[in-house]
Amino acid sequence: MKLSTRLLALVDRFAPPETVHAHCDIPCGVYDPEQARIEAESCVKIAQKYHESDDPLFRDRCVFVKEERAELAKHHISVLWSDNFKPEHLEQFPDLHDTFWRALKQCSNVKRSMDPAEGEKLLALIDEIDEMWKKSGGLEKTRLNGRPGN
Amino acid sequence: MKLSTRLLALVDRFAPPETVHAHCDIPCGVYDPEQARIEAESCVKIAQKYHESDDPLFRDRCVFVKEERAELAKHHISVLWSDNFKPEHLEQFPDLHDTFWRALKQCSNVKRSMDPAEGEKLLALIDEIDEMWKKSGGLEKTRLNGRPGN
Amino acid sequence: MKLSTRLLALVDRFAPPETVHAHCDIPCGVYDPEQARIEAESCVKIAQKYHESDDPLFRDRCVFVKEERAELAKHHISVLWSDNFKPEHLEQFPDLHDTFWRALKQCSNVKRSMDPAEGEKLLALIDEIDEMWKKSGGLEKTRLNGRPGN
Amino acid sequence: MKLSTRLLALVDRFAPPETVHAHCDIPCGVYDPEQARIEAESCVKIAQKYHESDDPLFRDRCVFVKEERAELAKHHISVLWSDNFKPEHLEQFPDLHDTFWRALKQCSNVKRSMDPAEGEKLLALIDEIDEMWKKSGGLEKTRLNGRPGN
Amino acid sequence: MKLSTRLLALVDRFAPPETVHAHCDIPCGVYDPEQARIEAESCVKIAQKYHESDDPLFRDRCVFVKEERAELAKHHISVLWSDNFKPEHLEQFPDLHDTFWRALKQCSNVKRSMDPAEGEKLLALIDEIDEMWKKSGGLEKTRLNGRPGN
Amino acid sequence: MKLSTRLLALVDRFAPPETVHAHCDIPCGVYDPEQARIEAESCVKIAQKYHESDDPLFRDRCVFVKEERAELAKHHISVLWSDNFKPEHLEQFPDLHDTFWRALKQCSNVKRSMDPAEGEKLLALIDEIDEMWKKSGGLEKTRLNGRPGN
Repeated sequence: MKLSTRLLALVDRFAPPETVHAHCDIPCGVYDPEQARIEAESCVKIAQKYHESDDPLFRDRCVFVKEERAELAKHHISVLWSDNFKPEHLEQFPDLHDTFWRALKQCSNVKRSMDPAEGEKLLALIDEIDEMWKKSGGLEKTRLNGRPGN
Repeated sequence: MKLSTRLLALVDRFAPPETVHAHCDIPCGVYDPEQARIEAESCVKIAQKYHESDDPLFRDRCVFVKEERAELAKHHISVLWSDNFKPEHLEQFPDLHDTFWRALKQCSNVKRSMDPAEGEKLLALIDEIDEMWKKSGGLEKTRLNGRPGN
Repeated sequence: MKLSTRLLALVDRFAPPETVHAHCDIPCGVYDPEQARIEAESCVKIAQKYHESDDPLFRDRCVFVKEERAELAKHHISVLWSDNFKPEHLEQFPDLHDTFWRALKQCSNVKRSMDPAEGEKLLALIDEIDEMWKKSGGLEKTRLNGRPGN
Repeated sequence: MKLSTRLLALVDRFAPPETVHAHCDIPCGVYDPEQARIEAESCVKIAQKYHESDDPLFRDRCVFVKEERAELAKHHISVLWSDNFKPEHLEQFPDLHDTFWRALKQCSNVKRSMDPAEGEKLLALIDEIDEMWKKSGGLEKTRLNGRPGN
Repeated sequence: MKLSTRLLALVDRFAPPETVHAHCDIPCGVYDPEQARIEAESCVKIAQKYHESDDPLFRDRCVFVKEERAELAKHHISVLWSDNFKPEHLEQFPDLHDTFWRALKQCSNVKRSMDPAEGEKLLALIDEIDEMWKKSGGLEKTRLNGRPGN
Repeated sequence: MKLSTRLLALVDRFAPPETVHAHCDIPCGVYDPEQARIEAESCVKIAQKYHESDDPLFRDRCVFVKEERAELAKHHISVLWSDNFKPEHLEQFPDLHDTFWRALKQCSNVKRSMDPAEGEKLLALIDEIDEMWKKSGGLEKTRLNGRPGN
C-alpha cells in the first residue's frame, strides 16, 4: 500500500463514522440481513422443486431464476459488508471480512449447483452475518420498529 | 367482459391453486411483506434526513434515492398481490384488492413528497398486507424457518 | 381495515385526482396498454417459434427470453392498474380489479408454459384492459397524437 | 477495414436475412417504433409539466425521470436499427443510418434540456423511422394483429 | 427526409460539438471500446467452456449468461456510435455507420450461437472500432491517464 | 464462527480453485479492474464539469448520473473481490480485504461528494487493486489478448 493511500485511510478512519454506511448509500441507515435471507431461501426452494419435477421446461426455468435470486443475495450481502460495518467493528468481529467473503463465494456456488445443500450453507453464513449485525446494534439502529414478530 | 374470457377465468379458478403464485414466478413459494417494509422504512428515514440537512447536494440525492426505494416497494407489493394471493383468499379478505391498490398508489405518493408521514402511511398499509399474509398462513407456508426472532 | 386507514383512504379519495397516476410516476400522464401488448405478442411468437424449431440452443434461449418479456408485460400491466385508473373508475368498471389481477396471473402462466395459447389468453385480457382504458378517455388524455394510424 | 472483415461482411450479407433481427434477439420478430414514441411523448409531457410547476421537488423529479425515459427511447431506437433493418433495406432507405444516428443523438439532447421542443424533434425523427418501418412491411411482418385502431 | 428535419439536422451539425457525446450522456466524455471488448471476450470464453464441459447444468447456464454478456457488449457499442462519434468523423471514417451496424448485428449472432468463432468475429469488429476511436483522438480526449500499460 | 461453518470453510479451501471465480459467475474467467476504472474516471470528470458549469439543470443531472457511475464501480469492485481472488491470494496480499473494503466505501464517498478529489482517491485504490490483479497473473490468465496497447 502506498504511503499516500495509507494516509488517506488513516483520515477516513477518524472521520465521523455515521456518514459512511447504508443500504441505499444516502445513507438511509436501514439494513437487515433479512433481504439476503429471503433470496437465499428462494434458492433452496427452487433447488428442491427442481428435483421434485421431471418437466424439462420447469427445470430449465429453475436454472436461470435461481441464478437471478443468488445474484440478488450477493448484492445484498455486498452492501451489508461495505456500508453497514465500519472499521470499529473489526475488533469486535475479527472474522468479519472472511465471513462476508465466504458468503459471497457461496452465492456463486449456489448459482453453479442444483443441490439444496449449497443454499443451506449460504443460509448458515447469512445467520453468522445476522448475529454480527445484531451484536453491532443493527436491529435498534437501523430498523424503525424492529423486525415484525412471528 | 367477453364470454370467452369469462369462461377462461372460470377454468382458471378451478385450476390447482398451488401453481399460481411465488415471489420469483417459478413459483419458489417464498414471500414476505418484509421486503416491501424495508424499502418503505428507507423512504421514511430518507425523508427525515432530508429535513434535518441543509446541504443542497445531500437533499438532491435524497429525492432520487427515495424514488428508487419507493419503486422497489411498489414492485414487491405488486408481486405479493398477483402471485401470493389466490382467488380463494377473496372471501377471507374482501378488502384484498382495495388494500393493495391503495398501497401501490401510496408508493406513488411517497415518491412525490418529502413528508415522512407519507412513508408512515405506506408502512400502515404494508402492516395490513402483512396481517392478511399471516392469516393466510404466509409465514408457515412460505418461509423456511419463520422470521428470525428479534 | 383499521379506522385510521379508512380515514386516510377517505382523504385520498377526495384529493385532486389529477396528481395520482402516470406511467413514470411523475406523473407524466402518458399511458398506453400497447406497451404490454407488444411484449405479450412477443411471448406468443417465441412460443410458436419454439415449436417450429428442433435446435436445442434456440429452444433454451426461447425459455428465458420469453420469461423476460412476460415480466415486462407484467410490469406494464401493474403500472396501468395502480397509476392510470382512479377510484372514480371503479363504478364505471366493476371488474377493474379482477381483470387486472387475472392479467397479472396470466403473465405468470405465460412464463410457465410454451403453449402459444397462454400468450393469446394474455392478449385477450390486455384487450379488455385496452377497452377500459379507451372508455376512460385514455387515448385523448394520455397520448399526444393518438395512436398512429395503421 | 481489413480484408478478413470485409470477407466476413460479404458472407453476412448473403446469409439468410430472416435470422438477423428482432426486438428481443430471439428474434421474436415483433417490432414497433411505438415503444420509442411512448417514451418520447413522456419526455415532452414531463418538460411541459416542469415549466407549469414552481414546486422545486416536482421539478427535481422531472429531471431524472425524463432522463430515464429518454434512455428507454434510446434503447428502443437502437434495437430497431440493429435488429429490424437489414442490408437489403439500405437501397430502399439511403438515409437509414443517418436518421437513426440523429434520433439517438436527439435522445441525448432530450436528456440535456427542459425544452419540450427537444422532445418534439425526437418525435419527428421517430415518425421518420415509423415510415421506413411501415414501408419495409413492419406492420404486417411483425405485429400479430396490426396496431389497435384508434 | 422532410425539409424540417433536414434543417434541424443542419443546425445540429453546426452546434458546438463538445455537447454531443459521452458514455453517460452527461456527457462525462469518458469512452473506451475496452468495455465492449471485455464483454465480448467473456462471450468467447463461455462458448469455449461450453464445449469443454458435458455437465448439462453448466451448459444451460452458459446459454443465458452469454446472452447477458452479449447484450452488454451491444449496449456499449451502441453508446460509442451515438455518443462518441460526431458528424465531422464521417469524412474521416466513411465506414463508420456500417462498421457499427455490423458489430451490433454480430452481438445478436453471438447470442444465437455457441461457436466461439462468432465471438472472435465480434472482437475483430471491436478492433476496427477501437482503431477509429484512437484515430479520432479517443484515448487522449476521453481517458484521464491513458489505458493502463500491460 | 460455528464449528460446522469452520469445517465447511476448510472443505471449500481444498476444493479445486478453478471453479470459484469469474466476472459473470459462469465463471467465464475474464476479469479486469479496467471496468471499475472507467466508471471512476467518469465520476472524476462529472465532478469537474459540475464545478465548471453554472447551469442548474446540468448540475442536477451531474448528481444522479455520478451516483449511477459510482454504483457501477462499486459493483465491478465487489465482483473482483469475491470472484477473482481466492484464499491462496491472502498470503500474497495481506491487505486484500482491507483494500477492497476501503475501495467500496470510497465509492460511497464519491456518491456523496462533488469534490473530484474523492474520485481521485477511488482511482488510487483501484490502482492498488490493479497491481494485485496483475501480480496474481490476472492479465495472462483472464484476458484473451492482454490489454490493448496505447
